[in-house]
Amino acid sequence: MSTLHEECGVFGVFSQTRRPVAALTYYGLFALQHRGQESCGIVVGDDGLFRDHKDVGLVGQVFSPAVLNDLGSGTMAVGHVRYSTTGGDGRLNAQPIVVNHNKGRMALAHNGNLTNAYELRTQLEMTGSIFHTTSDTEVISYIITKERLTAPSIERAVDRAMDTLQGAYSLVIMSPAKLLAARDPFGLRPLCYGVTEDGTYVVASESCALDAVGAKFVRDVMPGEILVFEQEGVRSLSRHCGTRPHSVCVFEYLYFARPDSIIDGASVHAARLQAGRFLAQEHPVEADVVIGVPDSGLDAAMGYAEASGIPYRMGFIKNKYIARTFIQPDQSDRESKVKLKLNPIQAVVKDKRVVLVDDSIVRGTTSGQIVHLLRLAGAKEVHMMSSAPAFLNPCYYGVDVDSKENLIAVKYSVEEIARHIGADSLGYLSVEHACQIAVSGNAGGFCTACFSGEYPAGVPKYDRKSRFEQKLSERQKEEDEAQ
Amino acid sequence: MSTLHEECGVFGVFSQTRRPVAALTYYGLFALQHRGQESCGIVVGDDGLFRDHKDVGLVGQVFSPAVLNDLGSGTMAVGHVRYSTTGGDGRLNAQPIVVNHNKGRMALAHNGNLTNAYELRTQLEMTGSIFHTTSDTEVISYIITKERLTAPSIERAVDRAMDTLQGAYSLVIMSPAKLLAARDPFGLRPLCYGVTEDGTYVVASESCALDAVGAKFVRDVMPGEILVFEQEGVRSLSRHCGTRPHSVCVFEYLYFARPDSIIDGASVHAARLQAGRFLAQEHPVEADVVIGVPDSGLDAAMGYAEASGIPYRMGFIKNKYIARTFIQPDQSDRESKVKLKLNPIQAVVKDKRVVLVDDSIVRGTTSGQIVHLLRLAGAKEVHMMSSAPAFLNPCYYGVDVDSKENLIAVKYSVEEIARHIGADSLGYLSVEHACQIAVSGNAGGFCTACFSGEYPAGVPKYDRKSRFEQKLSERQKEEDEAQ
Amino acid sequence: MSTLHEECGVFGVFSQTRRPVAALTYYGLFALQHRGQESCGIVVGDDGLFRDHKDVGLVGQVFSPAVLNDLGSGTMAVGHVRYSTTGGDGRLNAQPIVVNHNKGRMALAHNGNLTNAYELRTQLEMTGSIFHTTSDTEVISYIITKERLTAPSIERAVDRAMDTLQGAYSLVIMSPAKLLAARDPFGLRPLCYGVTEDGTYVVASESCALDAVGAKFVRDVMPGEILVFEQEGVRSLSRHCGTRPHSVCVFEYLYFARPDSIIDGASVHAARLQAGRFLAQEHPVEADVVIGVPDSGLDAAMGYAEASGIPYRMGFIKNKYIARTFIQPDQSDRESKVKLKLNPIQAVVKDKRVVLVDDSIVRGTTSGQIVHLLRLAGAKEVHMMSSAPAFLNPCYYGVDVDSKENLIAVKYSVEEIARHIGADSLGYLSVEHACQIAVSGNAGGFCTACFSGEYPAGVPKYDRKSRFEQKLSERQKEEDEAQ
Amino acid sequence: MSTLHEECGVFGVFSQTRRPVAALTYYGLFALQHRGQESCGIVVGDDGLFRDHKDVGLVGQVFSPAVLNDLGSGTMAVGHVRYSTTGGDGRLNAQPIVVNHNKGRMALAHNGNLTNAYELRTQLEMTGSIFHTTSDTEVISYIITKERLTAPSIERAVDRAMDTLQGAYSLVIMSPAKLLAARDPFGLRPLCYGVTEDGTYVVASESCALDAVGAKFVRDVMPGEILVFEQEGVRSLSRHCGTRPHSVCVFEYLYFARPDSIIDGASVHAARLQAGRFLAQEHPVEADVVIGVPDSGLDAAMGYAEASGIPYRMGFIKNKYIARTFIQPDQSDRESKVKLKLNPIQAVVKDKRVVLVDDSIVRGTTSGQIVHLLRLAGAKEVHMMSSAPAFLNPCYYGVDVDSKENLIAVKYSVEEIARHIGADSLGYLSVEHACQIAVSGNAGGFCTACFSGEYPAGVPKYDRKSRFEQKLSERQKEEDEAQ
Repeated sequence: MSTLHEECGVFGVFSQTRRPVAALTYYGLFALQHRGQESCGIVVGDDGLFRDHKDVGLVGQVFSPAVLNDLGSGTMAVGHVRYSTTGGDGRLNAQPIVVNHNKGRMALAHNGNLTNAYELRTQLEMTGSIFHTTSDTEVISYIITKERLTAPSIERAVDRAMDTLQGAYSLVIMSPAKLLAARDPFGLRPLCYGVTEDGTYVVASESCALDAVGAKFVRDVMPGEILVFEQEGVRSLSRHCGTRPHSVCVFEYLYFARPDSIIDGASVHAARLQAGRFLAQEHPVEADVVIGVPDSGLDAAMGYAEASGIPYRMGFIKNKYIARTFIQPDQSDRESKVKLKLNPIQAVVKDKRVVLVDDSIVRGTTSGQIVHLLRLAGAKEVHMMSSAPAFLNPCYYGVDVDSKENLIAVKYSVEEIARHIGADSLGYLSVEHACQIAVSGNAGGFCTACFSGEYPAGVPKYDRKSRFEQKLSERQKEEDEAQ
Repeated sequence: MSTLHEECGVFGVFSQTRRPVAALTYYGLFALQHRGQESCGIVVGDDGLFRDHKDVGLVGQVFSPAVLNDLGSGTMAVGHVRYSTTGGDGRLNAQPIVVNHNKGRMALAHNGNLTNAYELRTQLEMTGSIFHTTSDTEVISYIITKERLTAPSIERAVDRAMDTLQGAYSLVIMSPAKLLAARDPFGLRPLCYGVTEDGTYVVASESCALDAVGAKFVRDVMPGEILVFEQEGVRSLSRHCGTRPHSVCVFEYLYFARPDSIIDGASVHAARLQAGRFLAQEHPVEADVVIGVPDSGLDAAMGYAEASGIPYRMGFIKNKYIARTFIQPDQSDRESKVKLKLNPIQAVVKDKRVVLVDDSIVRGTTSGQIVHLLRLAGAKEVHMMSSAPAFLNPCYYGVDVDSKENLIAVKYSVEEIARHIGADSLGYLSVEHACQIAVSGNAGGFCTACFSGEYPAGVPKYDRKSRFEQKLSERQKEEDEAQ
Repeated sequence: MSTLHEECGVFGVFSQTRRPVAALTYYGLFALQHRGQESCGIVVGDDGLFRDHKDVGLVGQVFSPAVLNDLGSGTMAVGHVRYSTTGGDGRLNAQPIVVNHNKGRMALAHNGNLTNAYELRTQLEMTGSIFHTTSDTEVISYIITKERLTAPSIERAVDRAMDTLQGAYSLVIMSPAKLLAARDPFGLRPLCYGVTEDGTYVVASESCALDAVGAKFVRDVMPGEILVFEQEGVRSLSRHCGTRPHSVCVFEYLYFARPDSIIDGASVHAARLQAGRFLAQEHPVEADVVIGVPDSGLDAAMGYAEASGIPYRMGFIKNKYIARTFIQPDQSDRESKVKLKLNPIQAVVKDKRVVLVDDSIVRGTTSGQIVHLLRLAGAKEVHMMSSAPAFLNPCYYGVDVDSKENLIAVKYSVEEIARHIGADSLGYLSVEHACQIAVSGNAGGFCTACFSGEYPAGVPKYDRKSRFEQKLSERQKEEDEAQ
Repeated sequence: MSTLHEECGVFGVFSQTRRPVAALTYYGLFALQHRGQESCGIVVGDDGLFRDHKDVGLVGQVFSPAVLNDLGSGTMAVGHVRYSTTGGDGRLNAQPIVVNHNKGRMALAHNGNLTNAYELRTQLEMTGSIFHTTSDTEVISYIITKERLTAPSIERAVDRAMDTLQGAYSLVIMSPAKLLAARDPFGLRPLCYGVTEDGTYVVASESCALDAVGAKFVRDVMPGEILVFEQEGVRSLSRHCGTRPHSVCVFEYLYFARPDSIIDGASVHAARLQAGRFLAQEHPVEADVVIGVPDSGLDAAMGYAEASGIPYRMGFIKNKYIARTFIQPDQSDRESKVKLKLNPIQAVVKDKRVVLVDDSIVRGTTSGQIVHLLRLAGAKEVHMMSSAPAFLNPCYYGVDVDSKENLIAVKYSVEEIARHIGADSLGYLSVEHACQIAVSGNAGGFCTACFSGEYPAGVPKYDRKSRFEQKLSERQKEEDEAQ
């Protein structure tokens, strides 16, 4: 039950013939909803015309049947779900963004975060460019547009732009006639594609979205690769492939991605089971029952149970109605929401020594409340296990990790945290084991920066601690005073 | 993943002093949301004044902070969640209903179904009574009002009314100064009460709602009992207790109730585990893995795994966003919703012999789709297990069982159903075992009418097959022609 | 620009054949919207089945095309617009009300106010009747239902009920097979009917609603008359006709009704012109220009100009967008809304002696603000003329006149009021002249109670000053304490 | 009752101290609502920070108290109301637009239409610029941004940009520290400013918006002038003043502007009265009564009555609820909306020879329906008078005149049109007289292009007939095919 937020999920469709691509994208975005719940959007490409709809809200709220009907059929579509990290207007920053330029139009959906967005934006502004949003996605579209002035094709423009763009990006781009999928050379964020029985190509952040639309998984987009979907079929541009060490975000396996997805060849579900098994090796305890925090802690809890031989049980009932409609009517009782969301099953935990597995511990507040609920339900001992290593560093590649002062592991030792959350003992998965969970995969390596502090793709030059938007806002403040 | 619908959940609060009872009821209704998602309502009793709000929608949609603030504080409240079975205006039939009568006002929330509603209504109309709704709850309020003309107190009026009312009813009733909880002599629907640390009494359909508001469970309301909560404390009227055999609905344990609830002394979670164990005894198969259909099939699946020794696994990922916001944009693909809602984890089921446990099989359509999904994901064999016995009869006590012609078990043999849904084998829990799942409870007996055809509280006189509302509608038709 | 509120408008349709009666009623209610803006409703009668929709809001908000489509076609419909005078739940009290009784169903729409509602309700409750609303319309439906037990037909039941009902009522009633229109013996509220080219009968509070649906005006419903629309045609029951002096509300002509309506044979527009002419006779002043307060003061202003020979001009521009969408964002500036709504045209009033005609003066606040606006725009003198006499008494027949302590004419002399609102002089139309404005009509007489204090139909027995609902609320308070 | 659409109204506030500028702008936009009803927006400037809110809808719908509260206080604000002429996404094209550029941020609100937008946009795209909207306002912001790279101040950048921009523009521009108001050298669209008692400067399209916020009118912004509002006070840049003949749109007087506004020194109300007087001179008829089509035909009708000596009367009642909430439920009766909106007063027109004055005749459909209504109400003769000359040409300066093939005056002679709409005679105001209606004003001259075909500021080079957006859409089509 983490409070970390992935910023985005992307989706794209390319068909040789006119099809209800808006509906297809709607289904795909539903399957990617966990990657972003603030806003979403779909752009349909229909014989060179673009029709789009974006708004703040969940996929099912933003896209009514009437809206989907208006978006209609076409040969291509790009979709996006977003969790906004900025305080700004969520609607303004909703994606995909659509821009009109010298050679026509372009729709662009982006998952990730540039590390040189600030420098690029400043350079663009020096030549008279204007910006409507605070998002680095607008920077990407400018860079591609500039290259497009001289590049012979949209894919060549993207290829050249990748010489300039730094950081994490999985992109789906639609021109009037082509659909592109591009992934940064480190492969920090996932991206894959598949094909349906009738030959429609589908690109998605995760394979679970391919399943949702009945598309067969073909393969992951390789780090640094650009795929071009066009009337003639699929082409690959691979000039940037292999130029950087493969560094897919390990937290995708541990928390963000859906367990039924396969990322860079490794099953997310299997990775979580394995994380639980490693946890049992690293932190063996004598206990009567292993329970997980629903839903994302359940897989690792099963892995722990399997490796330890301690029985696995359902320890909590989760109120499924809370998630989307609950608004706390008063502020008097800060624990209420966790209490309403999770109710321990007394029959399972009463008078028992309990191993409690959660996906991560960020601030420690939620963990403390959950341990407290178990104590009230009669648990004799509570041994907390985090299937993610301890968070110690910010992420510059597209995850909204809490600011350093809020990360409990930065301030306290493991023993202190255990005491703080009221657990009898506490264990984190080690970074070493975290890098071994995706055993069956073809991933060459992982980004573990938030745990280890080693940033494969570097950190923003101007400001290691703050974010792109904060930088922008400071600069504007200075300029305002100067003006 | 049943398509059966419980019609209602009730909730009540009584406090010696003025408190934010609307907020308390809001939390309680959230915990009972699974018992009715169509409409909900809260009536606050504040120094003799009643303030109410009811509407179609989920608790979190109907009760905004502003609405709760308007409802405000008081010494009492009654709440209700409803799944409407009528085609009529959901808003009109929303509960609690508030009536003004000779001795003041009364608010009434009802879970269950009368079997003599039609006769009572006809008698009332013969003396000039008018009805605003098609609900039998309005009939109950009339009967109590009539008794109140001569009864010395509201509780005595209810006590007398219980001589007239037949069928299933768990009631929470608020007069200007008292809160009552009453349960029919068969105890067909659950009802219990608890008390918070500060002495506030709380009545609820299920104990999980007591947990949600931090109330300690005191005990179940006994079949036939009337509890009176008033300034002096709690009183019990027990003239009707023990007059009928205890016959709590067994399907509450198997499907409706939340696993963290305790009904008539038995844990719902434990009952489902036990149902799974019995299933393993009755229908042993050779298999590699046991999986449950999320969420209500998981407990029984664990019980099956435990008793059979076959490993339990998470076989499906459930898209938690689907439930509340998904609207199917087209009708072309009828399987889409199940496919979007549930995605099998290939790593778990591929090339495996799978035992699939679900809570029930009603029409068979959903089961067929789920089996099909497992086949597509590579399952070698699928053995379907239903933790409820086969549905063969309508329910007249408050559950919206599909009409007989839609119940697959009425039309086909077990083998035919297995073939129909594409399973290699199929097992239902036996009715005998179903009656033994709530082992630790103090329940004297169960209603198993929908499985066995034995109706403890009788069936409606005028029409065994149709419902109260249908009867009414037919009669009106005749009268219209006559007029 | 009065702050008085008419409570209701009623509408009914009867056709020999199935027609889109919901749409027809929608158009009719649009034309009656000025008679009530809080809630509205339509009930369609279709071969004995009733389909209804009611809600808080304007006609165009409550009835979307989808809702109208659901209401669909039928042979009859009843519609209602309401301005609620109670503090209670507007939605609950929305009309038409639909009740189910011994002989079927009945839909009822009511304009007016009973004077013996409290007594009738108390008697009904003594025999066990329950009430869902605080509206006297529910009392009427009970009385009719009781009579219907023994009456051979619905029209005879209404006829007998009229022996019991006292006060003001214009009713449209729908039984499964007939549509009735009934008007109290005093004819306090208007009611008329017409017929379309294809033979559909239409009943409405005002003739402007007949125009809106293309129906030809036939005649007013006579005071005390019951009209029965049925397959065979129209029948009249006239036992109550002529039993009481005709006493139509004079304020319908002066303010409530639309100028294009004809009530009891007299044109509302012509009556207002005449009121202006009388005002000029009673209160001649030397001035340069006559202007009216839009929209309801314009007709009388023209009459004043015509009789006085002083030129008529448009003195104000009214912001037509304010009415429905404006919400005052702050409370700092109490004059803002009038200022935003009305802007004087400087070219018309600057350095001029202005005669300002408004439809009435209730509290004096708005009048003061309007005079102030004219002063700011440079008017040299402002002579205020009220085309209604001074308000001195409450209305018990269906108009929400402000409570006596707020009526400025109760507390001050004409000179004091003129000073209070900043006018150089002030004139009210005399009650004598008010009774002569509907010259061409066949009305035998008027109710002028709010001006004269003479109540043709009596006043409520129990409480001359308070309203039915207040009485009820007091009683309930007492009972609560006793219980 | 014209079907022509003004595209925009602009509003701006500058205060030396922090004030509730959002609420002030809200009031101002309410007064300008008639200039654009599709979308609206407000940007608040608060110590260099910009907060904005824009959406599709009326001012009162888009700006709830909560939204205004979020926008909050500041020293500056820019507001806009828009009637969109494009088929595209109204929300995307809502103004003011806010752009981030090299020297900070800029908010821009625009009324008018560039004639060289297409050329400028193409040039910008050739250097890599991207466009988010299809609006020419984005082109203006680019041109200013480009100039700002080298200009020493925002006002100098605007001054230089005006060398490039061609066509009609009244602009309100907000930089972090200054508010600018600029009007094109022809003065095609109105723009004026005023000051409140506490020294706050207010800029608006029309003076009625100054009245609404209690600001005293100071003067019109001169054609070609740039006003700079800053801490030190107001400054004027007048390099472009007098370089072009003053050519304010005459249709502002005849139709668009509110009668209580004063534009370029002339009262709109007085101008319409004068138009009516001229009409009476040009087209004298023998008649019994003069009536106007509410609301915009009333002033001219009074002028006609005054000059002709024929009595003026209110001939129609307008249903004020129709405008904002009416949705036609079916398509069967195309005349319904006019009939519901306007109802003739029979007492005024029956057996009369009627002069009917409307503000314009565009397609003739509405006029025909209105004449028909009068005939049904018994009018003996109907003489139609249009207070605007006949529409013969498109407008390139910001008015959405119907396409040429829909303009009835292009296809038919006056006699034919009279016959077509069913009038006994028809008269248009002459273009010569139209140019003399604003007698008291200081306007040097008028644009009468839509009547006369003489375009003072030229026509778009590339396409005389189509609009900017159509051009864009064609080009994109071509490029798509080429790509």
